[in-house]
Amino acid sequence: MKSEELYALLRRRGVLWPTAEIYGGAQGLYDYGPLGTALKRRLEDAWTAWFVGRSPDYYRIEPSVIVPEAVVRASGHLENFTDPEISCDRCGAHFRAETVLEKVRPEGVDGLAPNQIEEVVRANGLRCPSCGSTTLSVPKPFNLMFDLPFGVGRDERAYLLPETAQASYLAFARMWEVGRKALPLGVAVVGRVFRNEIAPRQVLFRMRAFTQAELQIFFDPAEPPGHLGPRAEELVPVLRADRREQGATDTQLVAARDLVAGGLPEFYVDHLVHMLRFLRDVLGYPAERLRFFEKSEKERAFYNRIQFDAELELESLGGPKEVGAVHYRGDYDLGRHGAASGKDLSVSRPSGRVVPHVLELTFGVDRNLWALADTHLRQDGDRTVWKLPSYLAPVPVGVFPLIAKEHRAYAERLVADLAVAGVEAAYDEASSIGKRYARMDEAGTPFCVTVDGGTVGDGPERDTVTLRARDSKAQERLPATALAARIAPTLRPPRPGPG
Amino acid sequence: MKSEELYALLRRRGVLWPTAEIYGGAQGLYDYGPLGTALKRRLEDAWTAWFVGRSPDYYRIEPSVIVPEAVVRASGHLENFTDPEISCDRCGAHFRAETVLEKVRPEGVDGLAPNQIEEVVRANGLRCPSCGSTTLSVPKPFNLMFDLPFGVGRDERAYLLPETAQASYLAFARMWEVGRKALPLGVAVVGRVFRNEIAPRQVLFRMRAFTQAELQIFFDPAEPPGHLGPRAEELVPVLRADRREQGATDTQLVAARDLVAGGLPEFYVDHLVHMLRFLRDVLGYPAERLRFFEKSEKERAFYNRIQFDAELELESLGGPKEVGAVHYRGDYDLGRHGAASGKDLSVSRPSGRVVPHVLELTFGVDRNLWALADTHLRQDGDRTVWKLPSYLAPVPVGVFPLIAKEHRAYAERLVADLAVAGVEAAYDEASSIGKRYARMDEAGTPFCVTVDGGTVGDGPERDTVTLRARDSKAQERLPATALAARIAPTLRPPRPGPG
Repeated sequence: MKSEELYALLRRRGVLWPTAEIYGGAQGLYDYGPLGTALKRRLEDAWTAWFVGRSPDYYRIEPSVIVPEAVVRASGHLENFTDPEISCDRCGAHFRAETVLEKVRPEGVDGLAPNQIEEVVRANGLRCPSCGSTTLSVPKPFNLMFDLPFGVGRDERAYLLPETAQASYLAFARMWEVGRKALPLGVAVVGRVFRNEIAPRQVLFRMRAFTQAELQIFFDPAEPPGHLGPRAEELVPVLRADRREQGATDTQLVAARDLVAGGLPEFYVDHLVHMLRFLRDVLGYPAERLRFFEKSEKERAFYNRIQFDAELELESLGGPKEVGAVHYRGDYDLGRHGAASGKDLSVSRPSGRVVPHVLELTFGVDRNLWALADTHLRQDGDRTVWKLPSYLAPVPVGVFPLIAKEHRAYAERLVADLAVAGVEAAYDEASSIGKRYARMDEAGTPFCVTVDGGTVGDGPERDTVTLRARDSKAQERLPATALAARIAPTLRPPRPGPG
Repeated sequence: MKSEELYALLRRRGVLWPTAEIYGGAQGLYDYGPLGTALKRRLEDAWTAWFVGRSPDYYRIEPSVIVPEAVVRASGHLENFTDPEISCDRCGAHFRAETVLEKVRPEGVDGLAPNQIEEVVRANGLRCPSCGSTTLSVPKPFNLMFDLPFGVGRDERAYLLPETAQASYLAFARMWEVGRKALPLGVAVVGRVFRNEIAPRQVLFRMRAFTQAELQIFFDPAEPPGHLGPRAEELVPVLRADRREQGATDTQLVAARDLVAGGLPEFYVDHLVHMLRFLRDVLGYPAERLRFFEKSEKERAFYNRIQFDAELELESLGGPKEVGAVHYRGDYDLGRHGAASGKDLSVSRPSGRVVPHVLELTFGVDRNLWALADTHLRQDGDRTVWKLPSYLAPVPVGVFPLIAKEHRAYAERLVADLAVAGVEAAYDEASSIGKRYARMDEAGTPFCVTVDGGTVGDGPERDTVTLRARDSKAQERLPATALAARIAPTLRPPRPGPG
């Protein structure tokens, strides 16, 4: 589906809509409705099970989204978290430099200095995208953070978190005390972050407030975390930076062991594979649409030693889009916060005092929610079916009375019984069973249960119901009391195996 | 326990700590660590099961925490969401008027106009609490909202949500379309809200960013939601406004039916009882420490027609503290947003077009997390035991190898197997079994499992483990494979019965 079509469907079904919709919306802000809220929750749970569940020394925390200025000064965000912005002196509109240069430089402006951007503008006689005049300003850095007047005097400055990672770095010293005082130590956050984007767009892909799921793994560089073990033969789809510089644009399938032989650290490749398996096996993205896009030294943030972005080809957005990334950040983060706070963030190791290095696994929750719609919502004849795995389905079960008046009481009790057994079900009595199936198919519900005359009667079908599976359309008759045991195990997200 | 003692314990165990602790913290901001994050999550789930689970027409949504200015102008927050503030002309310190007047007016300043507050200051010769001089300013209103420079020109204003309720009102029109187009319709939000408090204090009781769980029930005043039914005889602890005005301070136990006979609407009393049962039966607060404190017309916000605050006597804070409330807000909210947005928020009803009324059930998640520590953490001889119900316990199960070297592999596999079965367990091999029990007791863990020589041997105890219950201290031997089925049902929060 095209982006507009997909967005219209998600809006109609109450998955999401623009914030303050009755006031005309607010650029770059969205509200999740009932289906979106449940899907987002399950996506976050699946991420947590897969990434945080990998080690008993990995923990999830919930930090404040406001931090004092000292934090973003030390992290470098105050100085560097900027996008080059160009405004029009005539009409007053503001643009990301990338947008103004789009036609002549589709690869973006990463790595260009403001004067280089200006040169491109002049050389090509670029005009204001809004009013068409040639009165474009000199590019200047625009800080993407939201600042707050903090405290009563409104004289302190505080900032909304621009990335969850900072909160994990701040927590390291406390988590070292709370945990086993052992490395690797993982600190994960699933939480909101905020960026005053110059040009929010593509719905959930560039928002002003969004949810990240990030795991920071603190480790001793002398004992890096992770070995490939049985994952050595896994084929990883990569587009390497050196090949790109020679003009290549095709994805190669390279065995994990060969990536290591080619110079990438084993622990890093191990986490690429772990991310790949999450995207492909847990979320169910088609393997052929996935690739790991390596950022060159010029393209990546200076503190990142290695960076591969996980990209997914999206029909709705017409190309590969970043949905996650693996960053090897070295000791930059704890080094900076240690120096700025005056708190020694090194820890005692066999080799002496060590400032832990950081491997960051990052994942965009909203983007992936959109991607789950893009990749899993399909036309199947005249049905629109959202083929979500059961453990991601917002509503796992639909319960229908065949005839509302006669079977309502039984069906409602069944919904309550399933809830008590940990299986959430939605009751629906409106229109024909076929239409109810169709509504549930579109909402991603994997199981539908119908209560009928046999269920409430005295014959051999008493207390049995019809269970219909979304994907196979198979129907079967079974005791109502057997439903929970049948369905509940499919609702738990996969966890990584040992090793 | 006293507040400082309780806070020290919670901090040491990694339940929570001040935000940016290594920088000296940030006033009124806290981060939740692993235990706090899990407890908060379960508390939110229990709230959702109890309140949103009461009707298939009640839904949970996840809105943006940033809203455009038009929203807070219409809601009245721009004009009225203020605290009277007094500053000192000499030392520059700022105070809530309440704080300056504390000794002469312990009942607070609700309902006093700025000139009345000033009169109290002058009449009593009050001095600056910080420098002691008599140079206190005239009280002036201080708006508690955080405003953001929004957009590239930084010329639009946006605000951090001061209460989740507004997001539900904004969503009403969309939810009407998405739902069954029927009243009552419930829209719940569990989410962060933000207030630039003049004087944050009492740890989780006055924070600058905190989590509310709120359910807005939209209803037709001709058909109000809820009947007492079997709840008519429930004794509700109340302190009525009229009795307070006559000087009474004692809580009365009044049957629900008598509150109705005395003039409160039945639907309102029904929700008081529902809230009471949640606090007493689900969260397990001692009944004798709970009361519903009625706000008089003068004390409550002008749009509230009826307001009872749920208060809990807290040892740590030395008195009754608000932990939730039931507000009958009439048609104020949809009326204001309808007029300001130009969108007709009335709906078609048998009696014609009706602007729905709102009953608001509000609950402070952080405050209740603190309250669960205050009320459930106990000294039992030399044990410190956090007697949380299983469905609220951050870590439901501890798994211990009796001898790490010999039983580790089995115990680790057991942790993984329990996780797959939906039961989260923590592995602990450090120090004696007794010390491990003690650590788990303090963390609120209801079940501990020990793997020993019998478990891994070839004798009759093969594949059996010892299960120890926190509260009874009873131990029993059972097959490892039977654990999940024994424990899982205790982890699901109670749901309201039918009717």
